[in-house]
Amino acid sequence: MSKVPWMENEEIAMLVYPGMTVMDLIGPHCMFGSLMGAKIHIVAKSLEPVTSDAGLTIVPDATFETCPRDLTVVFAPGGTEGTLSAARDPETLAFMSDRGKRAQYVTSVCSGSLILGAAGLLNGYKATSHWSCRDALAGFGAIPTDARVVRDRNRITGAGVTAGLDFGLSMVAELRGQIYAECTQLMGEYDPDPPFNAGSMETAPVDVKQAMIDMAADFRRKAEDLAASWRG
Amino acid sequence: MSKVPWMENEEIAMLVYPGMTVMDLIGPHCMFGSLMGAKIHIVAKSLEPVTSDAGLTIVPDATFETCPRDLTVVFAPGGTEGTLSAARDPETLAFMSDRGKRAQYVTSVCSGSLILGAAGLLNGYKATSHWSCRDALAGFGAIPTDARVVRDRNRITGAGVTAGLDFGLSMVAELRGQIYAECTQLMGEYDPDPPFNAGSMETAPVDVKQAMIDMAADFRRKAEDLAASWRG
Repeated sequence: MSKVPWMENEEIAMLVYPGMTVMDLIGPHCMFGSLMGAKIHIVAKSLEPVTSDAGLTIVPDATFETCPRDLTVVFAPGGTEGTLSAARDPETLAFMSDRGKRAQYVTSVCSGSLILGAAGLLNGYKATSHWSCRDALAGFGAIPTDARVVRDRNRITGAGVTAGLDFGLSMVAELRGQIYAECTQLMGEYDPDPPFNAGSMETAPVDVKQAMIDMAADFRRKAEDLAASWRG
Repeated sequence: MSKVPWMENEEIAMLVYPGMTVMDLIGPHCMFGSLMGAKIHIVAKSLEPVTSDAGLTIVPDATFETCPRDLTVVFAPGGTEGTLSAARDPETLAFMSDRGKRAQYVTSVCSGSLILGAAGLLNGYKATSHWSCRDALAGFGAIPTDARVVRDRNRITGAGVTAGLDFGLSMVAELRGQIYAECTQLMGEYDPDPPFNAGSMETAPVDVKQAMIDMAADFRRKAEDLAASWRG
């Protein structure tokens, strides 16, 4: 274990905004939290508390102005209406574009890739998203790709919500190597055992699938409208 | 799908405290968030923001006084030093004991079961915890049990950190049935695919295991001291 780089000094910025899905943020945060010496910045427009789609309120600790300019990782979580608003907000896009241009890794989980796309950061890159809006990424010049974690050069995007754990653990391995990531995995007891097998479009029962496709139809349409109106 | 109970009115109280592991809270919260009509209360001693072990700050929305008295689910997340402090705090224990006596389900993830134990809620019950402190539960009269999710009558406890997703999805099925839970699973794209296989004591490489056992030794000892000093 002597070669494991226990202490490093990565600068990781995680965007937060009203209406985000908090699990999109916390899956990766749980894994990044193991990076001894790294600094994690919870970044928003202001330091006002931000309430998630499910009602959980988080306090940012950095603003678009105070967040370090040169980042190891810049990250965007997803959501539904809140994400569409963030992906239309000029200040948010200016921040993501500025930090994204210089960051070592440009990343997202779930529909957070819509924000990367709207900021012009996915043009020509393979990327993924929540199943409900993955295809919309094409409107931003991206190549929608169906996988749990998609990497194209320094763009690393995760699929929906809970994919943030797989994304986060992959990032830990990328930053610190496999042994460090395995330590993180054991401490987080990440040995998943879902009681059902309905977590993907391939495995979900047909009636469950149809009900959720119907439930997500309005969001899918709005995501497609957003991407279609994008001018890179 | 016509028999799915889309709207119910569960009252779910999730304890938060300084130094908790935020993923312990958010895994279940992510699943509970799908329960249309349910109320989720983020409960602490006061409404002051609470900072997690990894530095994320959350704002409670209820106090021990304002939290409803009769709950469907009462839940405690884990952590390390912060959890040991919460499990020694008379007000926290009085709250958990009072709500726990009358709640339909008494639950935890990770070392949150130390708090249930200290509140006298696991005496005579099978329960689990993070691998580092599971055996300490015996000091509270519990029967330490090695499984991802352990149920004994109305006590439902999850293993370490990320087990909160499996716990939460099991709870959704318990409250609303399997079809509803499968819908939740698909929306959360809970189709885990860890990049490594080091998430449990059974699968982790031997050097990773030893390093993490060593790292957790101090916490294990303190958890055992806490449980040994418990008088039920």
